[in-house]
Amino acid sequence: MPEFRALSAATGEPVGPAFPVHGPAEVDAACAAAAEAFAAYRATGREERAAFLETIAEEILAIGDLLIEAAMRESGLPRARLEGERGRTVGQLRMFAGVVRAGAWQQLRIDPALPDRQPLPRPDLRLRMIPVGPVAVFGASNFPLAFSTAGGDTASALAAGCPVVVKGHPAHPETGALVAGAIARAVAACGLPEGVFRHLTGPSNELGAALVQDPRIAAVGFTGSRAGGLALVRLAQARSVPIPVYAEMSSINPVLLLPEALKARGAALGAAFAGSLTMGAGQFCTNPGLVLAIAGEGLDAFMTAAAEAISAAAAQTMLTNGICKAYAGGVATLAGLPGVERVASGLTGEAGQGQAALFRTSAQAFLAEAAMGHEVFGASSLVVVCNDEAELAAVIGALEGQLTATLQMDSSDEALAARLLPLLEMKAGRILANGWPTGVEVCHAMVHGGPFPATSDPRTTSVGSLAIDRFLRPVSYQNISAGLLPPELRDEARGDGAPRLIDGTLTL
Amino acid sequence: MPEFRALSAATGEPVGPAFPVHGPAEVDAACAAAAEAFAAYRATGREERAAFLETIAEEILAIGDLLIEAAMRESGLPRARLEGERGRTVGQLRMFAGVVRAGAWQQLRIDPALPDRQPLPRPDLRLRMIPVGPVAVFGASNFPLAFSTAGGDTASALAAGCPVVVKGHPAHPETGALVAGAIARAVAACGLPEGVFRHLTGPSNELGAALVQDPRIAAVGFTGSRAGGLALVRLAQARSVPIPVYAEMSSINPVLLLPEALKARGAALGAAFAGSLTMGAGQFCTNPGLVLAIAGEGLDAFMTAAAEAISAAAAQTMLTNGICKAYAGGVATLAGLPGVERVASGLTGEAGQGQAALFRTSAQAFLAEAAMGHEVFGASSLVVVCNDEAELAAVIGALEGQLTATLQMDSSDEALAARLLPLLEMKAGRILANGWPTGVEVCHAMVHGGPFPATSDPRTTSVGSLAIDRFLRPVSYQNISAGLLPPELRDEARGDGAPRLIDGTLTL
Repeated sequence: MPEFRALSAATGEPVGPAFPVHGPAEVDAACAAAAEAFAAYRATGREERAAFLETIAEEILAIGDLLIEAAMRESGLPRARLEGERGRTVGQLRMFAGVVRAGAWQQLRIDPALPDRQPLPRPDLRLRMIPVGPVAVFGASNFPLAFSTAGGDTASALAAGCPVVVKGHPAHPETGALVAGAIARAVAACGLPEGVFRHLTGPSNELGAALVQDPRIAAVGFTGSRAGGLALVRLAQARSVPIPVYAEMSSINPVLLLPEALKARGAALGAAFAGSLTMGAGQFCTNPGLVLAIAGEGLDAFMTAAAEAISAAAAQTMLTNGICKAYAGGVATLAGLPGVERVASGLTGEAGQGQAALFRTSAQAFLAEAAMGHEVFGASSLVVVCNDEAELAAVIGALEGQLTATLQMDSSDEALAARLLPLLEMKAGRILANGWPTGVEVCHAMVHGGPFPATSDPRTTSVGSLAIDRFLRPVSYQNISAGLLPPELRDEARGDGAPRLIDGTLTL
Repeated sequence: MPEFRALSAATGEPVGPAFPVHGPAEVDAACAAAAEAFAAYRATGREERAAFLETIAEEILAIGDLLIEAAMRESGLPRARLEGERGRTVGQLRMFAGVVRAGAWQQLRIDPALPDRQPLPRPDLRLRMIPVGPVAVFGASNFPLAFSTAGGDTASALAAGCPVVVKGHPAHPETGALVAGAIARAVAACGLPEGVFRHLTGPSNELGAALVQDPRIAAVGFTGSRAGGLALVRLAQARSVPIPVYAEMSSINPVLLLPEALKARGAALGAAFAGSLTMGAGQFCTNPGLVLAIAGEGLDAFMTAAAEAISAAAAQTMLTNGICKAYAGGVATLAGLPGVERVASGLTGEAGQGQAALFRTSAQAFLAEAAMGHEVFGASSLVVVCNDEAELAAVIGALEGQLTATLQMDSSDEALAARLLPLLEMKAGRILANGWPTGVEVCHAMVHGGPFPATSDPRTTSVGSLAIDRFLRPVSYQNISAGLLPPELRDEARGDGAPRLIDGTLTL
């Protein structure tokens, strides 16, 4: 079998051990194993499945520093960031263990029979959610742990009862293989069928395409570029049985600087913004790539402080040489658009390093040129200067769908914010105030999603406990005898901790 | 403006008043009005929205017998059936009023701030579901009330807070116009913007296509043919911003006759089956178009009784002359497939009337010819005779996705049923025992949905309270001040009757 190696983020040279280039035969074997394992895996009880997720977390921690070092080598990301990301990954698996135990994801509903109802009796009807089947997960380059082999897509699919076939990101094969080994050990330790988890490696897009086209795959999780996500969506829709693709693709995450906040702390906001923009070389899905503000003194102070901080920002090694080239290209395109003025550039660096960039334009120019709204993945941002609230609202109305929208505001901005909020709700999955969008909390109330093209399916999220819903579908049981009903739908299961909607009344 | 008239189901001749043939200008106006009305409509409180749904129900009842007579004339369906359907339509609106009041559809989630958490504080995060925007609803011919102008799609979309633009089915324009008038009166009585509901009429597919392509439409509800549903899905996916289409399309609703039930009551099952098959000329999405059984004496008794009943079944007027012709064509195609034997034919009738038909084949022949699994809309069914359980399981495995799967079983069939149930769960949205699939209860635990091609989106249902979820998406609010939060997410709203997931714990 042919092999490939990771390319160092810093040098672009091959680094680390060689990994197999998987092809159609390995896709077929992985999907066959996943389909075979599905019946037994979906029949696992809540406690058994939760313990499995916790075992994966323990096995990942047990890899120790080897994992952090491999990820540093392959991604160019610093140790502290990767240690934090490991904590997030492990915490995410444990959160889903808690979600599985709590049982609300089953959406249990019972409408008891009404044999005497007129004109017709009502039969006994009971509903639960069941897993959709084997899920294909595409690892993301920018979070080699938290959005990759054992990331949020994998954790939520396994929590739902779906076997997972991961197509590892070729930028971090060693990191991926280490994590895949940890999952495989957890599968064995928990006595589950081996096909519950499979890991495919290789540098080509054909591998991922074959996986999405396999008839045994029932859903797809993806985080990456708009072009990549849309390609997978097209493949999934062209199947004889189409399947959902949950692709998190593209967002420029507008930050609105409201007038009173700008007046009170324009310079401080500028410095803080620059910190958020350049963190991790700007390689976050939620990076603040767009700033909207109304012209005035406060904005001038913001621009001055932001420009100063960005001008002093060191160039940073990007995840791959390809990403670094694409970033430079995106910055050049933006700089060349009519009405765009370069405000600041970060320090230059070596090959493979990205240089921060800040631009400004007018609302009129932004509204005239859709390309200004396209994502430039990296530490580049565009400030759109509006003359008044009407222009600000027009720019919001012209935005594509976003993962986040941020309000920098003081209490005296509240009336304006209240007028803008309904517009922002139509555009973004998460709206935050007086913070920066780059932190994505893993919790129950998180939405890491949003209208197209932020994602391919705005009805859900790829981070947080609601993500489990992506891999479930409802089944109704009518007049099924107690012995044949799924255990959680039997009368005697009441009190097992899972909520039930009984005849329309929610019962704990 | 050009006009068109309904064609009598019985004679194919024009009947009733003339209605406008709407085109692109009316689509544009309707979508503009819906988009304009959306902000105010989605801001309505739960009580206000529930009262609106109840007012629609009252206004429909207030039309009186005029509505039943128009529907009889246009659909050919009998009075008792249409009076029952009106009751179902009104009950459905009232059920959604109750759902809106109960508030669980908002999926409120609150993760309070943890300012002292290490290594990083957790921000305050709150989540709610919001409506997606104006919804296009396509009326279905086979339920001129319950799946049409004010049917399940309209009721659930309005319940979610979405304005609705209905493309009325051209087979029943007068019925549609009467119901649309009732909704418009309810809109006015409740002081809502006029654009909350619009009704478009016309006989062409281009009208529906223009509606799905309008950029202000955010989702589509459809019940009808597979070809029609897939055409809408393709249009929706080809938009610059793709939108979800909830199409309920095609199902043959397998009925499994298990051996002990067949032995005990084969003849009785045969007679009852014929009753379910021929009811309403077989024009139900859940009509039992496929019967699976293992060969034996019980099956012989079933076949004899079913054949006898079907041979005596009167021909019935079908919904439209086009549907009647398509039915005859489908029956002829099925009759001509290799290995298919005609067992019984109903009585012949006049033009526009469908003649019942019963066929049989072997499992081997069924597995060799995919066309045997295609829906024939009307009172035709195919019995697949299996030699043993393995053949039965193979036939189930070869089925496309279905709305329903039915088990006719005795308690001594339970072990076999337990082995088949996991296979059926992968194929159908609803599994029922010892009944017939044609009754679809409107309740909380109903799933009228299922894997492709039963629907275009198996993650949901078009009947029952869960249908509201189709028209909602989650939004997360991070560190948003109390005054700016949506009222239902404020701390003081606790106790308003809606359940909340607070820090992972469900609270009533």
